[in-house]
Amino acid sequence: MVNPILIEATRGSLVESWHRGAIAIAAPSGALALQIGDVERSVFPRSAVKALQTLPLVETGAADHFGYGSAEIALACGSHTGTEKQAGLAAAMLVRAGLCTDDLHCGVHAPLGTAAAAALAREGVAPTQLHNNCSGKHVGMLATALHMSEPTSGYWQPDHPVQERIRRTLEEISGAPLGADVQGIDGCSVPNWAMPLSRLARTFARLATGEGLAPERRQALGRILAACWEHPELVAGRGRADTVVMRALPGQVFLKTGAEGVYCGAFPELGLGFALKIDDGTKRAAAGTAIALVERLYPAARGLMPLGAVKTWWGVEVGAIRSAPALDAALASLKV
Amino acid sequence: MVNPILIEATRGSLVESWHRGAIAIAAPSGALALQIGDVERSVFPRSAVKALQTLPLVETGAADHFGYGSAEIALACGSHTGTEKQAGLAAAMLVRAGLCTDDLHCGVHAPLGTAAAAALAREGVAPTQLHNNCSGKHVGMLATALHMSEPTSGYWQPDHPVQERIRRTLEEISGAPLGADVQGIDGCSVPNWAMPLSRLARTFARLATGEGLAPERRQALGRILAACWEHPELVAGRGRADTVVMRALPGQVFLKTGAEGVYCGAFPELGLGFALKIDDGTKRAAAGTAIALVERLYPAARGLMPLGAVKTWWGVEVGAIRSAPALDAALASLKV
Repeated sequence: MVNPILIEATRGSLVESWHRGAIAIAAPSGALALQIGDVERSVFPRSAVKALQTLPLVETGAADHFGYGSAEIALACGSHTGTEKQAGLAAAMLVRAGLCTDDLHCGVHAPLGTAAAAALAREGVAPTQLHNNCSGKHVGMLATALHMSEPTSGYWQPDHPVQERIRRTLEEISGAPLGADVQGIDGCSVPNWAMPLSRLARTFARLATGEGLAPERRQALGRILAACWEHPELVAGRGRADTVVMRALPGQVFLKTGAEGVYCGAFPELGLGFALKIDDGTKRAAAGTAIALVERLYPAARGLMPLGAVKTWWGVEVGAIRSAPALDAALASLKV
Repeated sequence: MVNPILIEATRGSLVESWHRGAIAIAAPSGALALQIGDVERSVFPRSAVKALQTLPLVETGAADHFGYGSAEIALACGSHTGTEKQAGLAAAMLVRAGLCTDDLHCGVHAPLGTAAAAALAREGVAPTQLHNNCSGKHVGMLATALHMSEPTSGYWQPDHPVQERIRRTLEEISGAPLGADVQGIDGCSVPNWAMPLSRLARTFARLATGEGLAPERRQALGRILAACWEHPELVAGRGRADTVVMRALPGQVFLKTGAEGVYCGAFPELGLGFALKIDDGTKRAAAGTAIALVERLYPAARGLMPLGAVKTWWGVEVGAIRSAPALDAALASLKV
């Protein structure tokens, strides 16, 4: 099965490049409100499931134990830009748990934010693991291990109780069997499990509504979502889609990107979740598709995050990143 | 027509992302030695045709007039990394023509090379148009205008004689009609013309062999290729495929990347040229496909530029970028 073209990049009067992909929008029951392309193929959700990977931090009581409030929880759910404020909050979380940067195992990369990266370079300061976009999630994992009297060393390995707890949590909410056959290792060294987009969309519908979940879990998820809506700037960063959209539509749209062209989100009022994957893994197409989808369901989101023009280095518009006819038609047919 | 999958990115035991595209390998006559996917669709070659955009600089006598030797010609053909040496050579070319950085219209972007970009940031120096990867080409255009007594202002506009001369040159060598209907504006503000991969591959076969071209043009192209093989580090930069492969196989492989997933090249000994375009425009897939193709024709290239592993931030290999079965089969069937 060949997935349809969702996003096109034009130059002059020609389509220069295009991106295929698949989208599922589901209810908590798993009933699909929309499916485009192959939604039964297993997809690594990558960072799009950080809110779910953070669930044990709240459910075990570790967050309360270490005094992590909504800001710390939002950072744990985030793929942050690596600003001084974000890296500093991750450092403060470590300190509260009596840990240090060397206890992290997410690895080092330059801040995702170009301004943050340039600021470090200007000061001649090398980035640390705190600047890794996943540092908040990793501190949360370490704190959970400490609180549960589990070793902090090796917390990132698939057989560590912290990761096994996350795997079980994802399996319970998604209903997808997450065994070794669908396990991959993420860029930040922790395991990630592939599941069909249909299941991933249902997972986000449950995240949004709590339907089918135990009251304690429902409450913990509500707390996580509320934290992200309270601090959208910690979930991504200035000018990034997740931050911009969640700041504008708190309580209405939860949005989270993942590497390799993944986007997931939830619409509590509508009782729906969505998951999409661009075949080729490009961010411009994943973000463009997610934005088109959000704008279709929430017209108030229109204009918040333009899909993006193709420009010269002088800023002159010479093409466009736009939704393709197949995506337009599918979104138009959506009955919500 | 849906193009086949050429490159796959794996994680664990699953294929996480994949890239479709088309490839043409042609003789100077236009006879196709290989075609994968739709090779008749118009494709913007972008920077892959810089050697041809540089042809008027040599043919008009401008290069000799301003004392531009092989290094300057190689830089004009290049998408350079923006090192101090490369930006400095572009500056020296400007000075020799009595021009300054403000005469350029390629626009400003941070050096493509992360080390070069970090070095500038560390020194608190803002990048200039000299660091634009196209600065050498733009100086060549300005020098051609001066030498031909044409205005230097507006040298980048489609109706300027410099661009019209380039359009005509490309049309003559490719045999493809390059009118306004296939014109787009490149990121560096100059026009670029789309043509089918079949024609683009033939263009590179002619570039490599001179077949079907006037003796003066053949000589000028020979001089351009020799310049790139003499200074491959000026055509791209340290560690980049074009530089690495041309340094290892001078006279045998000419290789040039273009934005949005384009790669072109020429094999003079074999009398062949090639052109490829990845549908989604990603560099990893374009470079991966070009490398697989070069390795098939020149086993000596094996291992020079590994297709690339998927790694964690600790450098642990957790997946691979690899050629897909359709590409492997097509290359295996190639009779050369």
